Amino acid sequence: MTNIAKVAIVGGTHGNEFSGIYAIRQYQANPALIQRPSFETSTLFANPEAFKANKRYIHSDLNRQFKTADLANPDLTNYEQSRAKVINELLGPKGNAKTDLVIDLHNTTSNMGACLIMTQAGPFYNQLAAYVKMKMPEAIISRDEDHLAAEDHALMCTLGRYGVIVEVGPQSQSVLRQDVLEQMHQMTAHILDFVELYNTQSLPALPKRTEAYLYLHSIKLPMNEKGERLGMVHKNVQDKDYHPIHPGDPIFTLFDGTEVPYDGDRVVYPTFINEAAYYDNNLAMSLNDKIWIELE
Amino acid sequence: MTNIAKVAIVGGTHGNEFSGIYAIRQYQANPALIQRPSFETSTLFANPEAFKANKRYIHSDLNRQFKTADLANPDLTNYEQSRAKVINELLGPKGNAKTDLVIDLHNTTSNMGACLIMTQAGPFYNQLAAYVKMKMPEAIISRDEDHLAAEDHALMCTLGRYGVIVEVGPQSQSVLRQDVLEQMHQMTAHILDFVELYNTQSLPALPKRTEAYLYLHSIKLPMNEKGERLGMVHKNVQDKDYHPIHPGDPIFTLFDGTEVPYDGDRVVYPTFINEAAYYDNNLAMSLNDKIWIELE
Repeated sequence: MTNIAKVAIVGGTHGNEFSGIYAIRQYQANPALIQRPSFETSTLFANPEAFKANKRYIHSDLNRQFKTADLANPDLTNYEQSRAKVINELLGPKGNAKTDLVIDLHNTTSNMGACLIMTQAGPFYNQLAAYVKMKMPEAIISRDEDHLAAEDHALMCTLGRYGVIVEVGPQSQSVLRQDVLEQMHQMTAHILDFVELYNTQSLPALPKRTEAYLYLHSIKLPMNEKGERLGMVHKNVQDKDYHPIHPGDPIFTLFDGTEVPYDGDRVVYPTFINEAAYYDNNLAMSLNDKIWIELE
Repeated sequence: MTNIAKVAIVGGTHGNEFSGIYAIRQYQANPALIQRPSFETSTLFANPEAFKANKRYIHSDLNRQFKTADLANPDLTNYEQSRAKVINELLGPKGNAKTDLVIDLHNTTSNMGACLIMTQAGPFYNQLAAYVKMKMPEAIISRDEDHLAAEDHALMCTLGRYGVIVEVGPQSQSVLRQDVLEQMHQMTAHILDFVELYNTQSLPALPKRTEAYLYLHSIKLPMNEKGERLGMVHKNVQDKDYHPIHPGDPIFTLFDGTEVPYDGDRVVYPTFINEAAYYDNNLAMSLNDKIWIELE
């Protein structure tokens, strides 16, 4: 295994997710928080213009601009597409990155607690997941399309040799909650501690099996043929991220009062329930399998 | 007393407060919900352009444009200032309004539950407060600068002969929660029922004393001389709307970890704690007295 020499902590990829933005300011004011002996840590404020505008993004979602082909496409020229190319220069280039690990800090309006999202698979990620869950049992481990090659992933964190997302909530867009910020700091510190132990081959005994969630697909709000919403997430499901949904459970309430049951044929586990940022695409929630990450 | 002949229910005064927007759609689809025998009820979508843009407002806060002098000022020409003049034509004119009661539907990201906000004082409001609190004991009654003359109030609801705000939360900006929408429907129905009983002189015996909160002033987040935020609402205070703050209680945590105590000299009750929409002005919360509304 190759050591991790450079870590980048990215905040403000979305301009109205305040935890990461204030977290990196705290890291900049007190660098000891993110320094460890065996590697260098830098910070980056990814989308300052969106923060100034108090919006998720100016022209398009920065966290969807990092496919290798898109980074190389000179016709993609808007603010976030340009910013992605600049960040690719700073931290990448993707596929041969000078940054060994990108930690991208995010918030959700959903009741997801502290969630470690991994978009690639392999021994490094499996050990990281086992360590974080051991140190922070309330943390959630999420595997998000980790069967895809990094080059086909559009997420910022896939720019590094390794990359993860720290996702904390619930927190309204454009709000900073102390409790949620503390969750972010706690999970980020565990990741940095893991890298130090990994580099120095000092990892403690790790659990052989770690509970995780594997992303399956997203489902949309009920809509009519004109694309107008006909209903909302059922109140039984609201805030119940990671709680099982059984076939036939009500998942939507239409505005006329009708309840809509889940029409799948097996138990699934929802995440990003009623996330504000996904309304543009009328996404109601993501559905997941519960799985185990096994260490050899 | 003069009967209430015309009631207007207004949703979407702020474009990213979804409960009121979807509530009036439900009322339009099923008018029986808001019809009562003794008066007419209409609905109005106040700021559709802000909703399309998924923002609180396009140019300026629509709910700060209704001072009588501003409505008459031809130099106030931006979208919301123009929209206020149009709404004044539709429901007003303020000071001699064809609308007897304006019910303006709002959300907050703060943990305020269902809150009836009254900006004018008098026997009608006192009876309304007593009735709503009797029917919905979890409701909060708030008196917001009701010592000011209506003409000096900038809020939309002051356009009518009578006017109130239904404020429900917590709900992230740009999200629709079923539980919060149901609170809004419940409180609005109680207000309409009250008007029917008031008009027909059929009010039941009302409690002689009703608990309420009287707005005192707002306090700002800690800032440096450049206007940059130095801290956040203390986690002990977050979500504790209406809970007492005693002199010396920590109310802010600075980003360097320092706790800042409340420096007032008596117990106060906070509302709109860490409300997302008030970050523009760096407002941390509103402080209130707990009072009693007495019926004769």
